[in-house]
Amino acid sequence: MASIFSKIVAGEIPCHKIAESEDYLAFLDINPIVKGHTLVIPKMETDYIFDLEDDVIGGLMVFAKKVAKALDQAIPSKRVGVMVVGTEVPHAHVHLLPFQRESDINITKPKMALSQADLAEIAANIRSFVD
Amino acid sequence: MASIFSKIVAGEIPCHKIAESEDYLAFLDINPIVKGHTLVIPKMETDYIFDLEDDVIGGLMVFAKKVAKALDQAIPSKRVGVMVVGTEVPHAHVHLLPFQRESDINITKPKMALSQADLAEIAANIRSFVD
Repeated sequence: MASIFSKIVAGEIPCHKIAESEDYLAFLDINPIVKGHTLVIPKMETDYIFDLEDDVIGGLMVFAKKVAKALDQAIPSKRVGVMVVGTEVPHAHVHLLPFQRESDINITKPKMALSQADLAEIAANIRSFVD
Repeated sequence: MASIFSKIVAGEIPCHKIAESEDYLAFLDINPIVKGHTLVIPKMETDYIFDLEDDVIGGLMVFAKKVAKALDQAIPSKRVGVMVVGTEVPHAHVHLLPFQRESDINITKPKMALSQADLAEIAANIRSFVD
């Protein structure tokens, strides 16, 4: 069965898109830990990030860098942190977390309560900084 | 002034080395959050990971994958998580964390108390699985 992220890639489930290329997609986490919490995924479905082919995992980080640069400009933070847990959804994904406190980088932290309208506004702001 | 990691690269400060290539180095964190907690760095000193050139950040993840595959074999865990915080040492570094609980991926978590002998034994075990 296709992962929820593959359904997002296919357009069957909507997302607050940040950036897209032929092979990768970035969109807001709908249960954000911090404002601007973004997921970056390879479009091709693979569960474990370290099972990705070398060119795919390398390209994933290059694509994540482009998104992080936009987050740096759009969201006030110390810097953009990175987290990969991988047990939430069986489709490799990198969490990009513009953080104020190091303790923000923690998947078990309580989520922020943001409306769809809030997320849409945040996404539009971040997108405006994507090269 | 050279970062503590540049001093490790230069051999001025010892480390429990896991793997090394021309451009990258992996060694045990001496204040581990979990057993097998490994740092992967580019040898060239850059503070912020997202300031690395595309080929360097891509190559860093390909090198991290090789280390993660060894951790998968050496350390019992759910899988190997990834964390980049970056405010601890001004030299880009990826934390590889073989975790049992998602809450293990948290830089503010209490560190494990492991002796140098413990770390040496863990490093030797991981190294035996590096291709």
